[in-house]
Amino acid sequence: MINFEALSFITYGLYVVCSGDQDRGNGFISNTFLQVTSDPPRFATCCNKDNFTAGLIEESGHFSVSVLHQNTGPEIYGRFGYRSGKDINKFDGMNLKFGATGVPIILDDTISYLECKVIQKVDVDTHWIFIGDLVDAQVLDKTNEPITYSYYREVKKGVAPKNAPTYIDKSKLENKT
Amino acid sequence: MINFEALSFITYGLYVVCSGDQDRGNGFISNTFLQVTSDPPRFATCCNKDNFTAGLIEESGHFSVSVLHQNTGPEIYGRFGYRSGKDINKFDGMNLKFGATGVPIILDDTISYLECKVIQKVDVDTHWIFIGDLVDAQVLDKTNEPITYSYYREVKKGVAPKNAPTYIDKSKLENKT
Repeated sequence: MINFEALSFITYGLYVVCSGDQDRGNGFISNTFLQVTSDPPRFATCCNKDNFTAGLIEESGHFSVSVLHQNTGPEIYGRFGYRSGKDINKFDGMNLKFGATGVPIILDDTISYLECKVIQKVDVDTHWIFIGDLVDAQVLDKTNEPITYSYYREVKKGVAPKNAPTYIDKSKLENKT
Repeated sequence: MINFEALSFITYGLYVVCSGDQDRGNGFISNTFLQVTSDPPRFATCCNKDNFTAGLIEESGHFSVSVLHQNTGPEIYGRFGYRSGKDINKFDGMNLKFGATGVPIILDDTISYLECKVIQKVDVDTHWIFIGDLVDAQVLDKTNEPITYSYYREVKKGVAPKNAPTYIDKSKLENKT
């Protein structure tokens, strides 16, 4: 009998992954971003196929990742985690720049950011894994610690939105176990 | 100019990933393990193609992942992070079991473990990304916190071995920046 609590001990950070350009951009909160090779510096991020940002990554071939810190305000989580870019312009009033690849990069509550050029797209059913090579990376603010997903859950009392790879449908899990 | 320090703020956990069977098994320290879809519960782990365990995962079609805690002893890191299963039997004297899929599972210093059946293998140059569906998961010991890679680096003064996706060849990075 699978004990799904075992999954809660996997460690993740929290990021805003953005794509698009100056005319049309969007981003979403992600906990799935990691380095997959050291030379070349190559990264992977997982994105629900329904996310508006997924289409923008496919079109532009690039994405940015902003590493959020522990004191990230609820505005960022609310806007990028629980709203859709199909309904609102998530960038309204945000502090952002356009990077070396032309993609938008969120600067609010960001310790450092990375920009990647997509070299591969892996189909894992409900999600794509976008694999990309590093184009640029900068450090913005080292005064705060990176937020971990467990800190977000335990200290900030946050939960995963429905499109997250780690979303827990409690009714379903009870049936499965 | 890429600032490689930006990469150090990405959050990872630390795990022992094992594969093989009762006759021949091996494992290695990994910081790249994450959930990629929620339904079905599907996971990904990144493994250097030169790792002895990579061949065992390909042959058996399964792998286990043990989530290490903060007080994990140096024995585990030394044996699973810096030695090769081609030279020694890493399981000698370890506390292990064979799971539902038949793969070995490290129980020492483990909070919880997961077992996955490989459904896809993605080539990312020096490494494979193995994508697998959850077969079993159990919680062993919740008295310790999961260790993060930054805790390992900053508190335990650990460094990444050469086969890790996050390995830093300092001479090379200085040339690149």
